[in-house]
Amino acid sequence: MVKISLGRIGDSFSVPSLKAYIAEFIATLLFVFAGVGSAIAYNKLTFNATLDPPGLVAVALAHAFALFVGVSIAANISGGHLNPAVTFGLAIGGNITILTGLFYWVAQLLGSIVACLLLKFVTNGLAIPTHGVASGMNALEGVVMEIVITFALVYTVYATAADPKKGPLGTIAPIAIGFIVGANILAAGPFSGGSMNPARSFGPAVAAGDFSQNWIYWVGPLIGGGLAGLVYGDVFIASYAPLPAQEEYA
Amino acid sequence: MVKISLGRIGDSFSVPSLKAYIAEFIATLLFVFAGVGSAIAYNKLTFNATLDPPGLVAVALAHAFALFVGVSIAANISGGHLNPAVTFGLAIGGNITILTGLFYWVAQLLGSIVACLLLKFVTNGLAIPTHGVASGMNALEGVVMEIVITFALVYTVYATAADPKKGPLGTIAPIAIGFIVGANILAAGPFSGGSMNPARSFGPAVAAGDFSQNWIYWVGPLIGGGLAGLVYGDVFIASYAPLPAQEEYA
Amino acid sequence: MVKISLGRIGDSFSVPSLKAYIAEFIATLLFVFAGVGSAIAYNKLTFNATLDPPGLVAVALAHAFALFVGVSIAANISGGHLNPAVTFGLAIGGNITILTGLFYWVAQLLGSIVACLLLKFVTNGLAIPTHGVASGMNALEGVVMEIVITFALVYTVYATAADPKKGPLGTIAPIAIGFIVGANILAAGPFSGGSMNPARSFGPAVAAGDFSQNWIYWVGPLIGGGLAGLVYGDVFIASYAPLPAQEEYA
Amino acid sequence: MVKISLGRIGDSFSVPSLKAYIAEFIATLLFVFAGVGSAIAYNKLTFNATLDPPGLVAVALAHAFALFVGVSIAANISGGHLNPAVTFGLAIGGNITILTGLFYWVAQLLGSIVACLLLKFVTNGLAIPTHGVASGMNALEGVVMEIVITFALVYTVYATAADPKKGPLGTIAPIAIGFIVGANILAAGPFSGGSMNPARSFGPAVAAGDFSQNWIYWVGPLIGGGLAGLVYGDVFIASYAPLPAQEEYA
Repeated sequence: MVKISLGRIGDSFSVPSLKAYIAEFIATLLFVFAGVGSAIAYNKLTFNATLDPPGLVAVALAHAFALFVGVSIAANISGGHLNPAVTFGLAIGGNITILTGLFYWVAQLLGSIVACLLLKFVTNGLAIPTHGVASGMNALEGVVMEIVITFALVYTVYATAADPKKGPLGTIAPIAIGFIVGANILAAGPFSGGSMNPARSFGPAVAAGDFSQNWIYWVGPLIGGGLAGLVYGDVFIASYAPLPAQEEYA
Repeated sequence: MVKISLGRIGDSFSVPSLKAYIAEFIATLLFVFAGVGSAIAYNKLTFNATLDPPGLVAVALAHAFALFVGVSIAANISGGHLNPAVTFGLAIGGNITILTGLFYWVAQLLGSIVACLLLKFVTNGLAIPTHGVASGMNALEGVVMEIVITFALVYTVYATAADPKKGPLGTIAPIAIGFIVGANILAAGPFSGGSMNPARSFGPAVAAGDFSQNWIYWVGPLIGGGLAGLVYGDVFIASYAPLPAQEEYA
Repeated sequence: MVKISLGRIGDSFSVPSLKAYIAEFIATLLFVFAGVGSAIAYNKLTFNATLDPPGLVAVALAHAFALFVGVSIAANISGGHLNPAVTFGLAIGGNITILTGLFYWVAQLLGSIVACLLLKFVTNGLAIPTHGVASGMNALEGVVMEIVITFALVYTVYATAADPKKGPLGTIAPIAIGFIVGANILAAGPFSGGSMNPARSFGPAVAAGDFSQNWIYWVGPLIGGGLAGLVYGDVFIASYAPLPAQEEYA
Repeated sequence: MVKISLGRIGDSFSVPSLKAYIAEFIATLLFVFAGVGSAIAYNKLTFNATLDPPGLVAVALAHAFALFVGVSIAANISGGHLNPAVTFGLAIGGNITILTGLFYWVAQLLGSIVACLLLKFVTNGLAIPTHGVASGMNALEGVVMEIVITFALVYTVYATAADPKKGPLGTIAPIAIGFIVGANILAAGPFSGGSMNPARSFGPAVAAGDFSQNWIYWVGPLIGGGLAGLVYGDVFIASYAPLPAQEEYA
């Protein structure tokens, strides 16, 4: 059951909301800087060799660690989304209003773009690698891969952070959210790249000026994130006693 | 002392029980998708080379991270077993009734099968690797290896999650459960494969149509998990003051 | 808004302050021993080969794990800085007085120097690797790289540890602080080395007698750390209700 | 100040003490099985090649993860030592009586021996690798290396677990204890092997029948662990208000 909420427009311009956009911008910037940076680092160390297992481990750990930290540093202010698919998945469950969610998207996309431009500068102009499906795969397979792994990510956000009955799990939620991305990159990296995050894919596309496959990383993650919101919300949260109206995802 | 409980049949069909089966199905699916996916990713990157240490690290981390997250996202709903050997080990200690446990098994096996079929699709039909003992080893050695490492896993589940006196350890229990699997794969991977989980081995066997050594990954893990339930229950939990009848593993 | 505090001079010589200096000295020593040690280990295993991706993973994990632990073991006594840039960033926000902060710096630098001299001894005189920017980069790019990644580190310290409204995040703060350094080394290692810490760079420079690029690892981290203090303090903490005067970073 | 306590002899034979010995035996067995097993796995995968960086990462992670879990599963029952140097360091601070500590040693050594004999069986008789200093190093350097890194380990045990003022740090103490061992192996592995634990070194020596350098892994860790107990106890814990007599390390 979709619970999209329009909310009061003024709430999207309140001081706490503005702070939330800044927090999303900074956290996404720092996450993408380390994540995309690790892919450039691999290219630098190997003179642009094709990815091998040690490189996959390096890239997966960089994303896992940086997303864990990015979620942590924004959690108390914006909820720590850093990802349009997470924001969308939470909007589906009524945890954030549409307008505020759109501003989150803008902040996340800007953070990712700035991160990639900074990387371009500090690496003396090295290429910024963009996401794309591996040769031998078609786009549909890439989309389905991104659907499954983004479902895993957003389901994890719901179960460990957004669920009002999460209990002590909330303490380790940022670690879980970062590490499911690390695990999924170890599986999906050589196939779809393992994005799970339109912002993570969009910033490099802007910096590289290459949007050829970028749609895959909007369609897949948004479907996967939305499905997770529907499933978790309907199967689990829906059955809880009604919550007070002011209940918020925090 | 075996404390297998029959329970009331109706309890196995209650709404909370049905939700628990769904939670087990989803969490096992997502765990197996990342775990088996990481093994396929290695084959893809190396053109099916034999496993080397970086590949072992990649596969171990994928399983460690994904199981940690899988346990986390199901913990509050089903207890987060994701593994017939864990369910069996907990049944031995009276923490789950036989009928409910059987439905857990069905949910876990289905989750693993669906994960492997999805992997088959998104990788454009690559082979799904199945568990088997290394050349130069016999089946008994594989069974004993799986007994020892599954004992470690289920003992960890008891000590950090099922023990009513676990205290603050409960907060990091899902991390411990995931990471003992990661450690054990780093040791057992090149010998028995390091399954510790009949569902983790069964799904790939179905997808690959190869059940030749699958029995090893039922016998070893169930013996190891059962032993852990007996030892932990009898030596440690048995000495606590009697618990109220409604006490449940959560 | 810079909130640098002079404090009472006597406070910097109190027994708790002296203990804090000892805690910083020991924790920085143990962190640098493992971190620099891992770089020497790579050189030993590869006969001084240029860095490759597995080596980058080894060095990043050693720093991530050791900094996490170093912060943990000093957290209750000195706040667990282990880094002049962290101390400076916290001083900017008024969380530590200037004089006490200077003594922290001395303790951190001494800890790093002693660690490197110990490494020189136990490795039978192997070279101690120093930080420097990669060939093909200029110093400004190195400085900017260090600014960005140190900003990430000190922002993480604020959001998870120094923020009086951090809540349960405080429990995992040391892990977040260690892991952002691990993530950033995976990105910046092949470019600027990924120091984020003047003490981490200074000890090896002393042991190797090579200060040629050491200024980069003072300028970059101090600017990055100071900026993080300004941003986090002004945007987020400044809006909280006024805190009692005795409120301290702990 | 050494605070060694004789205690009442009967306490060492109480039911809780016997359970603690069993918990130490099992946890040490499972830790050594994964740790030593990972070293055998490397040899198996590489046909006994000399250690390279990916192998070092694999071995370090196996020890880090397995010790974290080993400490977790014994923490509530025996305190989770798994290591004669930890037991000795805690005895120095008066946290465990001499006789009980000796039984801990026996349990730890037996656990390690049984783990290595099991490994011998399940690997179809592969060689069990023993600790020794690298060629080009002398024994003194190995001893000092082990002193420094075991100091780090036992200091971590004190600061995060044994310190009565540890606070919320206690929740992540087992992770810190495991990960400092991981970090130190990444640094010391190619030099002294990175044992930090006489039991970890003794079991393989028994299984391999090779005690030639085993003394190094008693002398170094016991000095390092003892020093940590003295320093942490005297500088930090000693200044706290007197504790009630029944205060125990838990």
